[in-house]
Amino acid sequence: MKYYIGIDLGGTNVRTLLVDEHGESYSEVKGPTECENGPDYVCDKIIKQIESLDTSVCGGLQGVEGIGIGAPGPVDTELGIMIMASNLPGFENYPVCHKLKEKFGLPTFIDNDANVAGLAEAVLGAGKDYRTNYFITCSTGVGGAFVVDKKLVSGGRGHAGEIGNMILVPGGYKQGALNPGAVEGEISGTALTRKGKEAKGDLVKHAGDVFKLAAEGDEACQKIVEEFIDGFSTLLANVAHTVDPHCFVLGGGVFKSKAYFWDELEKRFNSKIHVGMRNHIPLLFKEIDDCGAIGAAMLPMSQLD
Amino acid sequence: MKYYIGIDLGGTNVRTLLVDEHGESYSEVKGPTECENGPDYVCDKIIKQIESLDTSVCGGLQGVEGIGIGAPGPVDTELGIMIMASNLPGFENYPVCHKLKEKFGLPTFIDNDANVAGLAEAVLGAGKDYRTNYFITCSTGVGGAFVVDKKLVSGGRGHAGEIGNMILVPGGYKQGALNPGAVEGEISGTALTRKGKEAKGDLVKHAGDVFKLAAEGDEACQKIVEEFIDGFSTLLANVAHTVDPHCFVLGGGVFKSKAYFWDELEKRFNSKIHVGMRNHIPLLFKEIDDCGAIGAAMLPMSQLD
Repeated sequence: MKYYIGIDLGGTNVRTLLVDEHGESYSEVKGPTECENGPDYVCDKIIKQIESLDTSVCGGLQGVEGIGIGAPGPVDTELGIMIMASNLPGFENYPVCHKLKEKFGLPTFIDNDANVAGLAEAVLGAGKDYRTNYFITCSTGVGGAFVVDKKLVSGGRGHAGEIGNMILVPGGYKQGALNPGAVEGEISGTALTRKGKEAKGDLVKHAGDVFKLAAEGDEACQKIVEEFIDGFSTLLANVAHTVDPHCFVLGGGVFKSKAYFWDELEKRFNSKIHVGMRNHIPLLFKEIDDCGAIGAAMLPMSQLD
Repeated sequence: MKYYIGIDLGGTNVRTLLVDEHGESYSEVKGPTECENGPDYVCDKIIKQIESLDTSVCGGLQGVEGIGIGAPGPVDTELGIMIMASNLPGFENYPVCHKLKEKFGLPTFIDNDANVAGLAEAVLGAGKDYRTNYFITCSTGVGGAFVVDKKLVSGGRGHAGEIGNMILVPGGYKQGALNPGAVEGEISGTALTRKGKEAKGDLVKHAGDVFKLAAEGDEACQKIVEEFIDGFSTLLANVAHTVDPHCFVLGGGVFKSKAYFWDELEKRFNSKIHVGMRNHIPLLFKEIDDCGAIGAAMLPMSQLD
């Protein structure tokens, strides 16, 4: 049996886990990130969490194969640094992998949290029986991950899966620094809530309300849901024609309402792809609930095998 | 030195080549496909071409590592068959790989011609110094290929790179069986020629005329060129956000006119991708002129290494 350490490095909390190659967890240490104290402070905290893990199952840290870190935002996986770190000020270009490698002498890898979640699903979750997986998470934002033979395709600068910035509706809604008509501005949970509030005011608190009101017959919300299904199925079709994954794995807050739209999404997606692909790319719902640290632990596993 | 056999199986001609691992060619046999005689006839012809190769450089066929076939249209790379074969009637589901493997006892692979051309560029051509390549060819149609670590990502049903059917302009022009507003209907050479003829009648014979007239100040053609640059840069940005390739390799008939639009395309593409990717994904022009059979020969090389 092989053992790995996974670290879920978030803006609020940081969590360190010892897991085996099947994703089973043996020991966990967590605490607030306190990133306002700077990256050296956070890095020391991670080191202490690793030292506090109960590693008796593998005879101590020398029985661990490697360390993986999941972090928010784009990452340069080759240099082992974060490129942007809006939720972790000071972590841009900070050599976090290098520091842990120096301290523990273990191979150490970093990737962004959507990639890490996608890897967990591909190795242990919904996509584990498929050679290639495209993972898409749709909640506040929209992110993705492409996994080939249980390895992440992170891309040249760690931006593979940054599908939230794909152009879905040329000249469409401009959200923040994204392209006009970008996926995230058109079909994210944030976009659904924005459109819902515009139409129904305080009746809509979050995306789920839009689906509920549409199902109850509200025409304005039905139009928003139709735009969502049309846009999401185009996103799926465009990714499918780019890499033809063996399956899609879908998750994120918006999919809490999946009962309202899953069947229609599947139908619409299949109508937008080449005949030879139709009904050959299953849409699967994600299986692993809390996949940040587990997925991070899969990073060294997917690189060292 | 390792040696491979590559077969460029087209609707008109079939061509068989003996090449080494550096793409150098040692012997070639070619002839008309005569596909009207059916797949068994064509398969026998391929077998005779292979037997007619001068394989003295590697001491006969036993010195060859494997055989690769490039074919038009989508291919099931795992089953070794063509899924659609509009230019090679009767080849749908025909076990061409199996027949050659049985005859010669060599590992035999098949993929579609855009994939094979992209592989040649990634292994020997413009993209050879980059870990991942996305190849795009834009002529009559638009096709692509994704190569990771010198291996093709063919996808679940061989449709990776079928980017001609990606939706670029929702509700746009409907060409044949493709999606309304698909890439091929909006920005292929065929689309440029169609739009040019609509605007300028017989003054436009092919896509190149549109670029020439635009450069001479024709406003209708300038509008068509602007739509092309806008659409092609969106295609590049969408693929970039999906897989973040280390480079793009671009080719095909439309790029004969690249002097008219290359700089603007590069600028527009960079304006549509995340800041962290900007100027990190070079657009490269393809280097290998006649890459069908050479690329096919790279198929076993990329699978057997």
